[in-house]
Amino acid sequence: MTSLTSAGDILGELYRVLQARKSADPDRSYVASLYAKGMDAILKKIGEEAAETLIAAKNGDDGALVHELADLWFHTLVLLAQRDLPLTRLTDELARRFGTSGHAEKAARLQDKTR
Amino acid sequence: MTSLTSAGDILGELYRVLQARKSADPDRSYVASLYAKGMDAILKKIGEEAAETLIAAKNGDDGALVHELADLWFHTLVLLAQRDLPLTRLTDELARRFGTSGHAEKAARLQDKTR
Amino acid sequence: MTSLTSAGDILGELYRVLQARKSADPDRSYVASLYAKGMDAILKKIGEEAAETLIAAKNGDDGALVHELADLWFHTLVLLAQRDLPLTRLTDELARRFGTSGHAEKAARLQDKTR
Amino acid sequence: MTSLTSAGDILGELYRVLQARKSADPDRSYVASLYAKGMDAILKKIGEEAAETLIAAKNGDDGALVHELADLWFHTLVLLAQRDLPLTRLTDELARRFGTSGHAEKAARLQDKTR
Repeated sequence: MTSLTSAGDILGELYRVLQARKSADPDRSYVASLYAKGMDAILKKIGEEAAETLIAAKNGDDGALVHELADLWFHTLVLLAQRDLPLTRLTDELARRFGTSGHAEKAARLQDKTR
Repeated sequence: MTSLTSAGDILGELYRVLQARKSADPDRSYVASLYAKGMDAILKKIGEEAAETLIAAKNGDDGALVHELADLWFHTLVLLAQRDLPLTRLTDELARRFGTSGHAEKAARLQDKTR
Repeated sequence: MTSLTSAGDILGELYRVLQARKSADPDRSYVASLYAKGMDAILKKIGEEAAETLIAAKNGDDGALVHELADLWFHTLVLLAQRDLPLTRLTDELARRFGTSGHAEKAARLQDKTR
Repeated sequence: MTSLTSAGDILGELYRVLQARKSADPDRSYVASLYAKGMDAILKKIGEEAAETLIAAKNGDDGALVHELADLWFHTLVLLAQRDLPLTRLTDELARRFGTSGHAEKAARLQDKTR
């Protein structure tokens, strides 16, 4: 079981590994094969995993749901890496748009800001 | 700009706020209104945001892409909260399936594990 | 209740009406407003309706399923019209790829051709 | 090239073949293998083909777009057949909701009814 602190570490580490996969052999690396096929192959996977997320959720199968959500997040991270967009662009956007700040002193205000 | 460390903090904080929204007024809180409508409303949003992610990516518009990905992640976090699945279930799955560990000593092995 | 013969008439008639909507006032016609917004607005609707089709099917609600499938087909016809692709391009492709012919004498062979 | 009249024949014929595939060998028939896997497998394909439709449309590739739309319609017909919903349920819904009638005398009114 990871702590909430290491959740960010896991995503950051995963993102760095996905970036490093750009120089890997497409024949030996699934991620490198996605890069080699191009953005459309990554987008197709995102569409597939979103559909499978809906199906798993409707089945009430939490294990399958977590599995599909992990696939969905994974391929969105591959897309970020492929576009050379740092993970912080995404987390900053989440923080900015939904009023969530990394600063503890703002935590009390979140009740009002994140509707 | 957030650091990679605070990326996890942002997600963890956002998830806690989403959980707290369960007791909010659906007329005043967008997230509470989603909970009130039920899981199908959340799933519909995930489907919409996935489609908008594809469109933004194909338009080569990084700002729009980050915007849509934030919407997509946001609604998957709402789904996790609605199902009472802790965020760590998702990050643990990412770590387990893709061989990413929070432990520095395992980092060297990632090259082989995360294809 | 329509007959199978008039099913094609309905689709053909609907397609012709959708083409005619190109000269309609976007403020008074939903379809004209989609054309005015551009292809992305049509594609977003296709993504939405596909997600709603999945949800309705999982709910086992045949009425809702037919409703969502009609929305999905409708917006794919709007896309065909927006791209100036005749409906017969789509039905020819269905006939060609799945071995279905309009000729009665070929019907017996369909068992083998349409897997 | 099919005529608009035979467009309906093609869809009707395809639907009948899809119904007949229910008694086919899943090892020899793609459609029978979908039935054997169950509704989720059909829904997953609908999600995939919707995503591929969006990608093909954004690529401005009319040939690929027609190809993906044919896949999308095909799998929605498989879903109708799997649920034992006649094709006329879908075309009737299209006629009812969008004001399209099979009767020639109503054609003049379509301008007002189908927005």
